[in-house]
Amino acid sequence: MKKLVYSSLILLGITISGQSKEDSIQFNKISTEILNNGKGYEELRDLTKNIGKRLSGSEAYEKSVQWAAKQLREAGADKVWLQEVIIPVWERGKESLQIKTNNGQSKTLKMLSLGNSEGTGGKDVSGEIIMVKSLEEYDRLPAEQVKGKIVFFNHPFDQSYAQTFIAYREGGAYRRTAASLTAKKGGKYAIIRSLSSAFDDVPHTGVMKYEDNIAKVPAVCIGNTTADDLEKLLKTQKVIATLNSNCGMRGEKLSHSVIGEITGKKDKSVIVVGGHLDSWDVGEGAHDDGSGIVQSIEVLRTFKKLGIQNNHTIRAVCFANEENGTKGGKQYGKTAKDTNEKHLFAIESDAGGFSPRGISLEMNEQNRKQIQSWVNLFLPYGVYNFDGKYSGSDIAPLHEMGVPTAELVPDPQRYFDIHHTAEDTFEKVNRRELLLGSTVMTQLIYMIDKNW
Amino acid sequence: MKKLVYSSLILLGITISGQSKEDSIQFNKISTEILNNGKGYEELRDLTKNIGKRLSGSEAYEKSVQWAAKQLREAGADKVWLQEVIIPVWERGKESLQIKTNNGQSKTLKMLSLGNSEGTGGKDVSGEIIMVKSLEEYDRLPAEQVKGKIVFFNHPFDQSYAQTFIAYREGGAYRRTAASLTAKKGGKYAIIRSLSSAFDDVPHTGVMKYEDNIAKVPAVCIGNTTADDLEKLLKTQKVIATLNSNCGMRGEKLSHSVIGEITGKKDKSVIVVGGHLDSWDVGEGAHDDGSGIVQSIEVLRTFKKLGIQNNHTIRAVCFANEENGTKGGKQYGKTAKDTNEKHLFAIESDAGGFSPRGISLEMNEQNRKQIQSWVNLFLPYGVYNFDGKYSGSDIAPLHEMGVPTAELVPDPQRYFDIHHTAEDTFEKVNRRELLLGSTVMTQLIYMIDKNW
Repeated sequence: MKKLVYSSLILLGITISGQSKEDSIQFNKISTEILNNGKGYEELRDLTKNIGKRLSGSEAYEKSVQWAAKQLREAGADKVWLQEVIIPVWERGKESLQIKTNNGQSKTLKMLSLGNSEGTGGKDVSGEIIMVKSLEEYDRLPAEQVKGKIVFFNHPFDQSYAQTFIAYREGGAYRRTAASLTAKKGGKYAIIRSLSSAFDDVPHTGVMKYEDNIAKVPAVCIGNTTADDLEKLLKTQKVIATLNSNCGMRGEKLSHSVIGEITGKKDKSVIVVGGHLDSWDVGEGAHDDGSGIVQSIEVLRTFKKLGIQNNHTIRAVCFANEENGTKGGKQYGKTAKDTNEKHLFAIESDAGGFSPRGISLEMNEQNRKQIQSWVNLFLPYGVYNFDGKYSGSDIAPLHEMGVPTAELVPDPQRYFDIHHTAEDTFEKVNRRELLLGSTVMTQLIYMIDKNW
Repeated sequence: MKKLVYSSLILLGITISGQSKEDSIQFNKISTEILNNGKGYEELRDLTKNIGKRLSGSEAYEKSVQWAAKQLREAGADKVWLQEVIIPVWERGKESLQIKTNNGQSKTLKMLSLGNSEGTGGKDVSGEIIMVKSLEEYDRLPAEQVKGKIVFFNHPFDQSYAQTFIAYREGGAYRRTAASLTAKKGGKYAIIRSLSSAFDDVPHTGVMKYEDNIAKVPAVCIGNTTADDLEKLLKTQKVIATLNSNCGMRGEKLSHSVIGEITGKKDKSVIVVGGHLDSWDVGEGAHDDGSGIVQSIEVLRTFKKLGIQNNHTIRAVCFANEENGTKGGKQYGKTAKDTNEKHLFAIESDAGGFSPRGISLEMNEQNRKQIQSWVNLFLPYGVYNFDGKYSGSDIAPLHEMGVPTAELVPDPQRYFDIHHTAEDTFEKVNRRELLLGSTVMTQLIYMIDKNW
């Protein structure tokens, strides 16, 4: 493409007058600063390449704690501290899944144990695979058909949705519940088709959950093309699977969330911007959620750099243990409650470092309508969607205490290609997309700080 | 990220009632069909990997003509034909740019001659580099300071803009005019900093233009980090550049645009959806504009597949020679005029296969307002921006004849990282983003066909 007449885009829809004009100028200062001088992208490179994956309880996670504290200090935070959090420790160890058909074919499948799943204790556990396409189909199966078998929950990610998070949510039940459902009918373990929008063999891990008083059988996942192949095989063959894994829970441990703030000039009530510092134990935790971490630090840096005099305390929180316990978020909420620390607002970025398209608002109608009334300020930055009514899981405890909460809504098309996989690497993050997310969070916090 | 309550996104903003409800259901059928069964992504893989780069006049371009005709037939077009177009032929040949400093350092720079530029005829042409940062600075230079020199136009891509096309447009003058500006003051050739948002050494080619009756000196481009390094060097050193290239215009040739259509059931007035089939002679022409080609073919396929009875003729046009002549678009317009063929509407996709965010409308206010009134139907697909007033360069001749024209507006953050480079490859295109673009074009054409 060559010929362009983009005359009016930058002023698209803005009413330039009085207060709104002042805000629009400030929005522009923020975007100019971040898109030109933002450090988030290089920070993310450092975090992902020099520390990498950082599951709660790992040495790498504790390195990332020191790293985040250093970045927050360098960003100009007035105060930086670690918040103690007791976190669950899960370890993967070695794992393998092999299949053998009755016509003698044998194959090793690319797989991952699901997070928080128990393994086979390092022993081979074999059984015949039976396949179901849905939970409803599984519910109809008599227990005697499941007993001693391996259940393959082959529910496909629904590509139909323009909003991929709907497909993710629909598939979520399989990841969470497959193991206990299998155990209840006497099955040996569960294999699930990954919650993946990619047409490849990459398995997507993620947290699962055992029901109380039900045997803790293993649950593992396989990628889409592996699942396709297995489905095809099962049409003509009896297939025996052999799992050998030694993942499992290893008790609890002291860990930390990392907090940095710029103290309020008018009062000490708190505005939180955050992401989670932990990641799964595969890939580099780049989109999930290194992006949210560096974006949150960028907000503080930008307030300092531009000399914006914040009325209230603006606090960046790098939450511990979102992926397999949400203990960082819970501890943060508990501490805020115990110390009776007033929180005005909290926003999380935990849906990937893609181009921002909206802000989801979980709050009363009055606050919601006020933020929605700012839409014309955000439109030039591609942010138009303020209709969501959810917010990040780390700030759910704050929400339960009555704090208005929000989440950055980035473009959702690429996230589930790489979410919770070895492919969630720095190379998948685009500099401008990432920095535009920081820009929008900084702009929103500027408005909240000024008007609330 | 783990916990989600995306309850209402898919119905965001839609008034479900009567006519609008029927359209919303049809929109959903279109997106479901394309996101699940769309062939555009695999078609793009085929075009980029098995044919690859396809500059006008090259053998590969003529292969792509046959390929496009085949795809259109397979998509179910009632009629497929080639439209003859006389195109200019430009060839790159060998090229190298070396620099030598007065302290004896020597280096080969990664570079590309600009499209349509003449070369040095295979001879070494050397001279001292002088640098300017802007056209204004160049204008102030006396001719005697330029005579016999190499002019380095070191204008940086302005990262400040959330809408990258504004930065591209601002930089466009350097690429187009640098050679003739240099020649007018007696300079030997021009080096420009690429119109690139990437922090790398990849040069971005693109078309340049000679003024009449001015010596045709060469113009070449270098990537951002190469330009940074050169700028640094020039602060302390005298730098001699030696260019050796044999690119140049090689006359004209008969070539073809490729056209396929589904005949209108009510009348034969034409709705055009198109992209350009040619690409630059580096990379694979994946985003620019293989994406627009496969998206346009997908529109036809989807109408056929869903059995939508189109009132008017829907025509996919794969234009020849957009990059260095726009002869395909010009010929198409001329033929339409000569045969007095009524055109209702034309849309082009030529800004990359990224997530769609809007549709730019170049037409009278009445048509514009009508299309804008459909915004609630498009919002669930992430399309909110109907404010642009430009359209694709291949359909400019139609626009000049009074046809309402439009362009798909995808997310613009990643485009200028790879535009016109060796990096514009299939791997840079995301399946869902690409198919969502086809979806939105199909939806729009469904509405136009029904209502106009």
